[in-house]
Amino acid sequence: MLTPILDAGDRRPLYEQLYRHIRGEIEAGRLKAGTRLPSKRALATHLKVSVVTVEGAYDQLLAEGYLRSEARRGFFVQAGAQEPQPERGPAPNLHEPIRPSYRWDFSTGGVDTALFPFSTWAKLMREVLSGQEDRLLSTPHPQGVPQLRQAIAAHLYRFRGIRAHPDQIVVGAGSETLISLLVQLLGRQGAYGVEDPGYGKTHRILTSCGARVEPIPLDRQGLQVNQLDAHQVRVVHVTPSHHFPLGIIMPVPRRQALLRWAGEAPGRYIIEDDYDSEFRFSGKPIPALQSLDGGGRVIYLNTFAKTLAPSLRISYMVLPPELLERWRREFWFYSSTVPSFEQYALARFMEGGHFERHLNRTRTRYRARREALLAAARSSGLLETASFSGGDAGLHLLLWMDKRWNETELVERAAQAGVGLSPLSAYDLSPAPADRPPALILGYTRIAAEEMAPALVQLKRAWGF
Amino acid sequence: MLTPILDAGDRRPLYEQLYRHIRGEIEAGRLKAGTRLPSKRALATHLKVSVVTVEGAYDQLLAEGYLRSEARRGFFVQAGAQEPQPERGPAPNLHEPIRPSYRWDFSTGGVDTALFPFSTWAKLMREVLSGQEDRLLSTPHPQGVPQLRQAIAAHLYRFRGIRAHPDQIVVGAGSETLISLLVQLLGRQGAYGVEDPGYGKTHRILTSCGARVEPIPLDRQGLQVNQLDAHQVRVVHVTPSHHFPLGIIMPVPRRQALLRWAGEAPGRYIIEDDYDSEFRFSGKPIPALQSLDGGGRVIYLNTFAKTLAPSLRISYMVLPPELLERWRREFWFYSSTVPSFEQYALARFMEGGHFERHLNRTRTRYRARREALLAAARSSGLLETASFSGGDAGLHLLLWMDKRWNETELVERAAQAGVGLSPLSAYDLSPAPADRPPALILGYTRIAAEEMAPALVQLKRAWGF
Repeated sequence: MLTPILDAGDRRPLYEQLYRHIRGEIEAGRLKAGTRLPSKRALATHLKVSVVTVEGAYDQLLAEGYLRSEARRGFFVQAGAQEPQPERGPAPNLHEPIRPSYRWDFSTGGVDTALFPFSTWAKLMREVLSGQEDRLLSTPHPQGVPQLRQAIAAHLYRFRGIRAHPDQIVVGAGSETLISLLVQLLGRQGAYGVEDPGYGKTHRILTSCGARVEPIPLDRQGLQVNQLDAHQVRVVHVTPSHHFPLGIIMPVPRRQALLRWAGEAPGRYIIEDDYDSEFRFSGKPIPALQSLDGGGRVIYLNTFAKTLAPSLRISYMVLPPELLERWRREFWFYSSTVPSFEQYALARFMEGGHFERHLNRTRTRYRARREALLAAARSSGLLETASFSGGDAGLHLLLWMDKRWNETELVERAAQAGVGLSPLSAYDLSPAPADRPPALILGYTRIAAEEMAPALVQLKRAWGF
Repeated sequence: MLTPILDAGDRRPLYEQLYRHIRGEIEAGRLKAGTRLPSKRALATHLKVSVVTVEGAYDQLLAEGYLRSEARRGFFVQAGAQEPQPERGPAPNLHEPIRPSYRWDFSTGGVDTALFPFSTWAKLMREVLSGQEDRLLSTPHPQGVPQLRQAIAAHLYRFRGIRAHPDQIVVGAGSETLISLLVQLLGRQGAYGVEDPGYGKTHRILTSCGARVEPIPLDRQGLQVNQLDAHQVRVVHVTPSHHFPLGIIMPVPRRQALLRWAGEAPGRYIIEDDYDSEFRFSGKPIPALQSLDGGGRVIYLNTFAKTLAPSLRISYMVLPPELLERWRREFWFYSSTVPSFEQYALARFMEGGHFERHLNRTRTRYRARREALLAAARSSGLLETASFSGGDAGLHLLLWMDKRWNETELVERAAQAGVGLSPLSAYDLSPAPADRPPALILGYTRIAAEEMAPALVQLKRAWGF
């Protein structure tokens, strides 16, 4: 019979000691599946404890699946209790979506993590960890720790000309999280306009947050502001610094038209997603919508996913005063979604000038890659039948092809040759105009400069010209 | 006149070099506010660069607010451009809500961060930082890093009797974030039932996510399952391990009734919020709803906010297979909301047995505080006119008072005497029954055991008996 050593002086109650002993025996395989355990009364008498004690232990073991009970027969060791096993695992055909990997990966959205200043970051994290225990563990400020919001405000002013008070900034676990908070803050009346073509994820997030979403067509200057009223848009999401994927930089007159639209009726807002504005390589600098806005209608949104690493999960937004007030009145209960550790480390990273240095280094590196890509395209002869656009800013280019080609076929042939790229049509929210030539999107953050020539030679060969 | 050194060999374009030079002069105070700058043409001639270069620099400075232009007069240094200033700061009356601080703080929701195993955590973070750069920087798995999900599955099985496959687990930046994802996953048809009284934040989050929310009354066994149909509830949020704030532990028959309700119509789900289940001090162990559920209708939700620190922002949920499938089909685009650093550190913390040890230590400490609180209440004579309930589990107790008292007055008098506590009515979602006696909620995680007696003496004195 079971003979655990039960110690009444132990802090744990007797039933728990007994439960742990039996569980240990089962896990170690000394009590085999199917073994019948002594009755509660018998074990209680044997151990000189009350029946209630044994009952407590058996109940716990039953609850945790180590034992099963059979009416009138007693308690048995459950089969398979030795190790965690899914009782109802996911359906066997439930595989995770697989992302294919390519020899040359021109996908967008990633960054070259080799550029991340890992040792500096690790050093700052260590400093944070060793210095400020209390602040690190208590609930952070709902909008993010003040030190980080100050660093972001200073950065925005210096590098983007944006005047934002640290109080206006809300830090969050990625732009997706912030967009979902924005739907709650801005409400679900009217429609949310998104750029078409555009970043499909924004459409999906807005939709699944319960907003009605209307794709708004673009022209060469970006979003067609005169289409907003026809679609009853109240809130519009735009990427004026560098449209994704077309690469359009919205000129000032169009920006002003957008701001005028927002001012024409109460409750209209513009979400300015400045997701890769740090990477501008040429062309005239254009102020952010937020800087041009005199009416408090622009919510500025940006992320550290592109400039540092996607795994950090830190984005932020700048709320105009009226929305900030509503936020504090109605949504103050929300906790900050970013761990304090990361917030303090990032604040130090920015304060110490590391972020600026990292940006400069990254910009130089990506510029070299972009130039290598353009040079390789020229020397491969690819530009005899195709042309690039969208290269003044951001981290991808559009390769426009002759109309006799078919986007899907181009992508498939490239994939077979080890070159991964996306068709422009992957970002169409509604059918594209029939006369639009085929185009491919080439993100160049993940391919070394010296790999551009072999990649394009391979591409040209795969396409057979 | 301005004489920057412009270097055509520099990687930065000339206009940017000029812009940086002028900005530096303004920031250093060498160009004072109100100073008129040379005309574009004059400066271009002076510097032997094109007018376009000067225009580029001036445009950037205008955009960033360093300069202002006056029609026909030229460009002037803007006042106050030396340091970041909010152009439109938040309205002056916009103060942050202030949380009062007390000599004795019986508030709920916090933890004693002094118990956090800081040096172990710091050591593991350092190990993570020094060991696995690639994995740390690339986008983590949408459901959370596999290593952490495995550790959580093993923990759930050992300590809670819950069989969950790591594939069923979704890690997120706090329960609030996960609840907002759940509304997206479960949809907005029908109503979401919440416990009344209950945790008001859940009601607010569900509402602002666009769900219709119905408060469901409780009886002594917890949520009244027979009230769900009358309120057209399709999804119900419950805290069966330890109701907040009443402290009810839902007995098995009521759990089974709830599961039967869920099985009676398609699309019904139960969100089992197990927020402080790790702290059970006495009473019979009761299996989680998730363990009793044979039909895949329970979503198990838990957090590390109570067991480790609120600042970590890590919660998780266990999805039943059908929902997991829907998640992967429709929401796979969502990124994990928790930084990889924290995920790997927590995985190591759990794998190394540190979490179990920390839980045991914390449980022992909180148990001592609870016992000191009960003893102090007895010795102060408070229990002659009041009684406690809800103490078998969780981290707070309810103090029920005689009907002649008024909750608000009790709370105010306590606050004046330096004792912070909440009235039960703060958690009523609809008016309480007229015959409910006044009650106060005493969280005991933040008060040392030896401070309980002075706190209760003070409380009794403040209440004048």
